[in-house]
Amino acid sequence: MTKYVLFSALLFLTSTTTFSQNNDSLIIRKIYTETLENGKAYDWLRELTEEIGARLSGSPEAAKSVEWTKEKMIEAGADTVYLQPVMVPHWVRGAKESAYILETNGNKSPVPICALGNSISTPKEGLSAQVIEINDFSQLAKLGAEKIKGKIIFYNHPFKESFQNTFQAYGEAVGYRWAGPSEASRYGAIATVCRSMTNASDNNPHTGAMHYNDSLPKIPCCAISTNAADLLSKILHANNSTKFFFKQECHFLDSVLSYNVIGEIKGKEFPDEYIAIGGHLDSWDLGTGAHDDGAGVVQCIEIIRTLKAANIKPKRTIRTIAFMNEENGLRGGKTYAMIAELKKEKHVAAMESDAGGFLPLGFGLNMKEEKKAKIQKWAPLFLPYFIYNFTNEGDGADISPLEKLDVPCMGLEVNPQRYFDYHHTAIDTFDKVNKRELLLGSAAMSAMAYLLAFYGL
Amino acid sequence: MTKYVLFSALLFLTSTTTFSQNNDSLIIRKIYTETLENGKAYDWLRELTEEIGARLSGSPEAAKSVEWTKEKMIEAGADTVYLQPVMVPHWVRGAKESAYILETNGNKSPVPICALGNSISTPKEGLSAQVIEINDFSQLAKLGAEKIKGKIIFYNHPFKESFQNTFQAYGEAVGYRWAGPSEASRYGAIATVCRSMTNASDNNPHTGAMHYNDSLPKIPCCAISTNAADLLSKILHANNSTKFFFKQECHFLDSVLSYNVIGEIKGKEFPDEYIAIGGHLDSWDLGTGAHDDGAGVVQCIEIIRTLKAANIKPKRTIRTIAFMNEENGLRGGKTYAMIAELKKEKHVAAMESDAGGFLPLGFGLNMKEEKKAKIQKWAPLFLPYFIYNFTNEGDGADISPLEKLDVPCMGLEVNPQRYFDYHHTAIDTFDKVNKRELLLGSAAMSAMAYLLAFYGL
Repeated sequence: MTKYVLFSALLFLTSTTTFSQNNDSLIIRKIYTETLENGKAYDWLRELTEEIGARLSGSPEAAKSVEWTKEKMIEAGADTVYLQPVMVPHWVRGAKESAYILETNGNKSPVPICALGNSISTPKEGLSAQVIEINDFSQLAKLGAEKIKGKIIFYNHPFKESFQNTFQAYGEAVGYRWAGPSEASRYGAIATVCRSMTNASDNNPHTGAMHYNDSLPKIPCCAISTNAADLLSKILHANNSTKFFFKQECHFLDSVLSYNVIGEIKGKEFPDEYIAIGGHLDSWDLGTGAHDDGAGVVQCIEIIRTLKAANIKPKRTIRTIAFMNEENGLRGGKTYAMIAELKKEKHVAAMESDAGGFLPLGFGLNMKEEKKAKIQKWAPLFLPYFIYNFTNEGDGADISPLEKLDVPCMGLEVNPQRYFDYHHTAIDTFDKVNKRELLLGSAAMSAMAYLLAFYGL
Repeated sequence: MTKYVLFSALLFLTSTTTFSQNNDSLIIRKIYTETLENGKAYDWLRELTEEIGARLSGSPEAAKSVEWTKEKMIEAGADTVYLQPVMVPHWVRGAKESAYILETNGNKSPVPICALGNSISTPKEGLSAQVIEINDFSQLAKLGAEKIKGKIIFYNHPFKESFQNTFQAYGEAVGYRWAGPSEASRYGAIATVCRSMTNASDNNPHTGAMHYNDSLPKIPCCAISTNAADLLSKILHANNSTKFFFKQECHFLDSVLSYNVIGEIKGKEFPDEYIAIGGHLDSWDLGTGAHDDGAGVVQCIEIIRTLKAANIKPKRTIRTIAFMNEENGLRGGKTYAMIAELKKEKHVAAMESDAGGFLPLGFGLNMKEEKKAKIQKWAPLFLPYFIYNFTNEGDGADISPLEKLDVPCMGLEVNPQRYFDYHHTAIDTFDKVNKRELLLGSAAMSAMAYLLAFYGL
């Protein structure tokens, strides 16, 4: 590629508006320049993921990451930094899981699995049984308890490739991971194996939270890589007496005192009105939680650094939060909302980055129509930075408890095509993150934070 | 990330149009579904890059890739596939280059370099001299021949990080690579070393074409990795008597007969009107040309496969072209335009994908305003697929010779943030390409090709 591609202003999309916000344009230009030229988020992410590592709630690494985040928020120049105590569950994986497909001829094919988060262990010696492949929950009732009892249910519901947005495919498939074990237990299944939640064809099993229905027997459950799911399916189609063996030692320890980490830039006119912006500090244990959600955390710290370095003094208080325990309990998000309610804190808006540190494309807006309309009027200010989509409604799990308090919630929307290649796997690591994409996401949130702090909502 | 992010229709951006193109919407939906569910472009790219490899013009691999592309176009279902002969230059790198910084205390620091494409070799034993660092061409004249004579000019002009679009940074910096050697030679320099064209801080030197001004002495020139450029700069600032040594054996062999590969789907109403869509088959020799531009080539073959598999019969002829020799001569693009002119072929439009197989965001439109306006009216058809930008003017180098024939030219615009991390380096390899991003780019071009073939322009 040698020809210089000329990028003119985004005249087409902006020409229909009579908007004139010269000063805001200049401040947003200042924000982007500061972030792109001097941003530290990428170096911070390297420290968080490569020096501390995976940060499952309750782990020593999660505790370390709390201290680390506090230090970085201070270094970034926050006016106030403090810890908000949160009791978190402490689930551990135990020894590495093992599994194989056991054919009727005695042939054993080892396959990569991982326990689903919150799952119980198998018996110490492992567990094996015949397998029934299911692509849709409705098939369970059709088969009935007679056929399912004593078997392993294999949920093999693939991501729908034709969905433009992979989060839509995830939303359609994740029920098999979350509720599948109890739904199978209802009919007497002794375990479940779930196809990994991804578009990718590879050998990485994807963990993620599952939830037991307390009125049904708890059964162990694991995820299997997509390549292995295809293999198991193929072998089952040839011989439906095929068995599956797996062994996992995961279990809960006592709950642990942990923290949300909060850093603020005080508003100079309305210090008691808050723009809350967060990501989550905990991660699954397999990789190092680079995209999920180390990215969101360092982007938030970068917001503080950028606004301070650019000498932008917000009218309202900008509060960044590194939430704890998004992955398997949401205790951080729930605690934050509870305290906000108790203290009767006025939240102008809440924003989250938890879809990976990829190229930002827009903001999801989960709020009343008139507030949405107000934000959509700011869209032309973001077009020079290729942020164009203000139509969707996704926000973020950690801030979702604020929805009940009528806080307008929003989420940074990013290129969704690669997220589920890495999500909840051993390959969600620092090398998958692009420096400029990460920084651009932070700059977009800084710009939005500035506007919210200046104009309110 | 556990919360499902709901994506509603792109109502905000589409609500201002009274457009009603239901049938087109359905056909474009069909195109996307076919490409995303059954697309082969990703597997083809694996073959092209991992089985054939780097494809510098004149190399045996370039010759193999011509045969391979022809076969794949036939396999994809093209009505006609043929080769268009092109004489190409044959530059070879020779043995791997070597270089070191030589401090006045005798300390030698080896650094990664690579010869720039088209450069002459150094003397057999290599070359060393004192170094003058230059950040801007204007400094050459200020220094003058007296100070420059016998020295090595080190162009250390970094990418400007605050540019949102990396192609803009490339456009601003690439002159030092392209014209820098002759500009330095004008003042008696004996060689040049150029900072690699990238935002990344790493150890990969980036090659790329340079051009000698025939009226000036030719001097050898190389690129140095950004980390090594920073090191050299630091050492020079401490001691400006520091020397640099490098050795390279690159040279030209005799020109070689090669080919553009052309595959067509015949138009059912206007077979003699062409929509030309291309990428380039040749690549630099360091990596395997995955993003630059294996991606564009397999996307083009995928257009044929998709339209045939979806049973979409274009009114006008869709012609896909795998151009030869974009990187160091543009002979393929020039030959194609020359033949088109000789045959008086009517080209409705030409389109190129040569910015990497990344997430598509829009189309650059290099054409008269009324034609631009016609295409911009189709924008709402692309919004459901997150293709929103129809305002820029970039097209592609291979199709640029058609501009003189007044052919409306366009380029697929993609996320530009990662392109220059890999561009012209040893790490432009298959693993850097995401399957869905690659396929989405092809689907976007198929949809555009369908509209152009149906409506004309």
